[in-house]
Amino acid sequence: MKDDDRPEPDTIREKIWEIIFRHDTPASRRFDVILLILITISVVVIMLESIEKYRIQHESTFRIIEWAFTGLFTIEYLVRLWVVRRTHRYAFSFFGIVDLLSILPTYLALIFTGSHYFIVIRILRLLRMFRVLKMVRHVGEANVLLNALMASRSKITVFLFSVLALTSILGTLMYLVEGVIYHNPAFPNIPESIYWGIVTISTTGYGDVTPTSPVGKLITTAIMLMGYGIIAVPTGIVSAELNMQLAAIRMDRRVCSNCKTEGHDPKASHCKMCGDKL
Amino acid sequence: MKDDDRPEPDTIREKIWEIIFRHDTPASRRFDVILLILITISVVVIMLESIEKYRIQHESTFRIIEWAFTGLFTIEYLVRLWVVRRTHRYAFSFFGIVDLLSILPTYLALIFTGSHYFIVIRILRLLRMFRVLKMVRHVGEANVLLNALMASRSKITVFLFSVLALTSILGTLMYLVEGVIYHNPAFPNIPESIYWGIVTISTTGYGDVTPTSPVGKLITTAIMLMGYGIIAVPTGIVSAELNMQLAAIRMDRRVCSNCKTEGHDPKASHCKMCGDKL
Amino acid sequence: MKDDDRPEPDTIREKIWEIIFRHDTPASRRFDVILLILITISVVVIMLESIEKYRIQHESTFRIIEWAFTGLFTIEYLVRLWVVRRTHRYAFSFFGIVDLLSILPTYLALIFTGSHYFIVIRILRLLRMFRVLKMVRHVGEANVLLNALMASRSKITVFLFSVLALTSILGTLMYLVEGVIYHNPAFPNIPESIYWGIVTISTTGYGDVTPTSPVGKLITTAIMLMGYGIIAVPTGIVSAELNMQLAAIRMDRRVCSNCKTEGHDPKASHCKMCGDKL
Amino acid sequence: MKDDDRPEPDTIREKIWEIIFRHDTPASRRFDVILLILITISVVVIMLESIEKYRIQHESTFRIIEWAFTGLFTIEYLVRLWVVRRTHRYAFSFFGIVDLLSILPTYLALIFTGSHYFIVIRILRLLRMFRVLKMVRHVGEANVLLNALMASRSKITVFLFSVLALTSILGTLMYLVEGVIYHNPAFPNIPESIYWGIVTISTTGYGDVTPTSPVGKLITTAIMLMGYGIIAVPTGIVSAELNMQLAAIRMDRRVCSNCKTEGHDPKASHCKMCGDKL
Repeated sequence: MKDDDRPEPDTIREKIWEIIFRHDTPASRRFDVILLILITISVVVIMLESIEKYRIQHESTFRIIEWAFTGLFTIEYLVRLWVVRRTHRYAFSFFGIVDLLSILPTYLALIFTGSHYFIVIRILRLLRMFRVLKMVRHVGEANVLLNALMASRSKITVFLFSVLALTSILGTLMYLVEGVIYHNPAFPNIPESIYWGIVTISTTGYGDVTPTSPVGKLITTAIMLMGYGIIAVPTGIVSAELNMQLAAIRMDRRVCSNCKTEGHDPKASHCKMCGDKL
Repeated sequence: MKDDDRPEPDTIREKIWEIIFRHDTPASRRFDVILLILITISVVVIMLESIEKYRIQHESTFRIIEWAFTGLFTIEYLVRLWVVRRTHRYAFSFFGIVDLLSILPTYLALIFTGSHYFIVIRILRLLRMFRVLKMVRHVGEANVLLNALMASRSKITVFLFSVLALTSILGTLMYLVEGVIYHNPAFPNIPESIYWGIVTISTTGYGDVTPTSPVGKLITTAIMLMGYGIIAVPTGIVSAELNMQLAAIRMDRRVCSNCKTEGHDPKASHCKMCGDKL
Repeated sequence: MKDDDRPEPDTIREKIWEIIFRHDTPASRRFDVILLILITISVVVIMLESIEKYRIQHESTFRIIEWAFTGLFTIEYLVRLWVVRRTHRYAFSFFGIVDLLSILPTYLALIFTGSHYFIVIRILRLLRMFRVLKMVRHVGEANVLLNALMASRSKITVFLFSVLALTSILGTLMYLVEGVIYHNPAFPNIPESIYWGIVTISTTGYGDVTPTSPVGKLITTAIMLMGYGIIAVPTGIVSAELNMQLAAIRMDRRVCSNCKTEGHDPKASHCKMCGDKL
Repeated sequence: MKDDDRPEPDTIREKIWEIIFRHDTPASRRFDVILLILITISVVVIMLESIEKYRIQHESTFRIIEWAFTGLFTIEYLVRLWVVRRTHRYAFSFFGIVDLLSILPTYLALIFTGSHYFIVIRILRLLRMFRVLKMVRHVGEANVLLNALMASRSKITVFLFSVLALTSILGTLMYLVEGVIYHNPAFPNIPESIYWGIVTISTTGYGDVTPTSPVGKLITTAIMLMGYGIIAVPTGIVSAELNMQLAAIRMDRRVCSNCKTEGHDPKASHCKMCGDKL
């Protein structure tokens, strides 16, 4: 949260803002730690609930705990909305949306009390898992990684699309060879064959679908060797991008006193924009 | 398509050329979007047809849709051939060939109407999947990736060949250890053992073929550790190549006329060493 | 061990110190080699003991060998404590702790002679395996790798946490799709689904848990494609860090006293710009 | 082969040397191509022989072909030994040894005609597969890759050893958790558990050995996340090394006219060793 979201000084709103939104005072640090612990517990509880044995034994206990946590996080969310100066900016920020999404599922399970719809609603309930993402906020190093990933976003999209197109063609070829010609039941249609192609080219290799014919194995070999060159591409992209990010960080921090330009060569003696002595 | 393929101005050919071959006017953009949607639908339809359940139920529907799409794309291909100034250049360009290959299979299935040959012809029919590759044309970022891959092409070929040679030797060794000495039916001959070697060294690891003897497991362990060093090579190649591509793009070739300093920021207006105007 | 740990000159302590803690005299080299061989044998013996067939046949032999090695390494440990000038510095150094941990398990198995606790204690006994790590001490190159890993430690932690958070959400989604909706017994609860998620996103792909529904396979495909971008991140981090480590090693900090040029070759004796002696 | 191995001019030896050891004259190129084809055929034949169906049907044919190829390659080997000026240098070079190893197995199968030794000898016979490596000789690009791999050899050895040590400890831990405590038959002893550890940490993941207990799955998850950081290391090493190799190639080729020093900074105006103007 930028400092221009700070409320008027010396009010109760400002004090709460300092505790909730800052991370550098003793009080705000204590708040962060407690919040992190509560989030962790609530996530562990929802995971334990999913284990049938525990769910049957302690159904009501789980419900009470879930409502307690949801209540707590709802209050926290409302307080956040109140103390922040520009409410809409927080509400539509990444963490504002995550905060909202992590309390909604419990309430949604309440409204839609239909019988067989129940299962579908539980999908939304379990989205509370998104709370986990809250923790990312507290770590500073994430920015360099995110910047590098953001900068290579379009290249990675092109790459992923190319992989998908290539795998579609190879999957179709394998469907014809294994499924149609050799009657391998593991390749019953093109979508399943494409699923196999992705499992193979990503080097995951479950082994639930494998070729049995010599021709199919030959094509598989070619796909896996291709996979070598392919996995090298995103690594190379992110690697080159990170190199640049890190180089930019270590660049000179001098600011030209005349035109305020930043980002000079560490060896430079004159401003690159106005020619003034640095 | 380069601009020297543009037909004579103010003709109907030029207007169609502008719609089909350019991507920066409202009309050409609309054409691109519609084409993309049609290609996607036709690909999805062919995938659904491969699912037995749907194929049996809607056989004639699938045939009609397929012929409709093939007709449409044939017209599109002929128009492309007509409007372009140098027909052979388009026809033998990468996308000219892809465009042709994506309509041929349907016609080929018509000519060769033999009974049991039918299955073989379907292989060609499904090559229509190549249409997917058309989409790549519309994305600009692909060039940097393709350049990096092209520049490292010969290094990657050498690498792939070395991996293949190494895997052949290791596969033979495993055939002797597992197949001949320990009678493991999963290693019946050298080609199957090489298939296993590629599955292992590429870290795919289906698990359809696995060693059972202690010696075989020891060799497998060695192969997998070797695989670490091996997978690093193509990644290093593409990474180094991408670094150079990106560095070359961002370099500035201006030299200060006063002090002859090189290596200025592309955005700089003054020399960083003497402050002279660049 | 730094040289300020060397005991008073010309004493027996100093002679033993030279043999045990140095690696550059003939005597100390011989000691290192013998120690390495003994450690290797003792590790191989404990591994053979774990094989039921051998354990039943040679139980008493294994016990004698184990006690002989433990006795020997205990004496070595005590001698190390005695000869070193500042005992606590060795005792709390990485290798001091490893040396201690590699003899403790045998003694611990002695004290706690309870019947069913026995198995739990054997866990500690087998920690003697840590002796293997001793060998790392003898290799110099490890430092560059460790420095690069240490420098990227916080970035890798953030990365691992993000992967864990992402996999938790995807695992929950798969539990709902595969386990709840499609009743796939391989996805019985969220923790098991997260285990599957990690197996998939790390491209390990055992195949013990695999999706069976079309929706589940679609999500799996998305996860594996995501895995491409994800595996690129730690590689990029370590790669960028190693580049810097190696660049820093090869950099020269000398400045020409005549023309103030920096960035000379470490082996250069004259300034590359003015020819003045450096 | 260096030029100082060339025999006396205008002799028959020199002419054969030019055909066999050079790769830049029409005659030598023709020889290389024919040799490559013969090697390929002989490798394919040995692979086909390993397939039981063919071996039973055409046993004598395979034997004749094998002896024909071995005879031919033996003559080739002897001629190579004769034409080269310094016989021992060729004989003990990498390809001299490969050439010898690729003819020996057939002869060895002849001498040791014992009954049950037969299988062991076949191991040596199949080493003829090494002939495949001969092809590498004909490719020029391999050098940059080999240099980069050689330069990072010691770092990769340290890395592989560390992985092996780490996997030994983790394998022991898993043996105790899965094998001893939870009685999972897939983890019967420490060596098998280490095998599983390598299969897991290299992200191969056959799935022939998988954890079944919750604790075992938790440890497996940790190992796989660790595997992320680990696979990044060799990639980073080779990547950094290749960057340097490529940078060195593109470095300045100017030689100081005074002291013959090479490897100057492209921007340098004076020799870095003697200070003379370049």
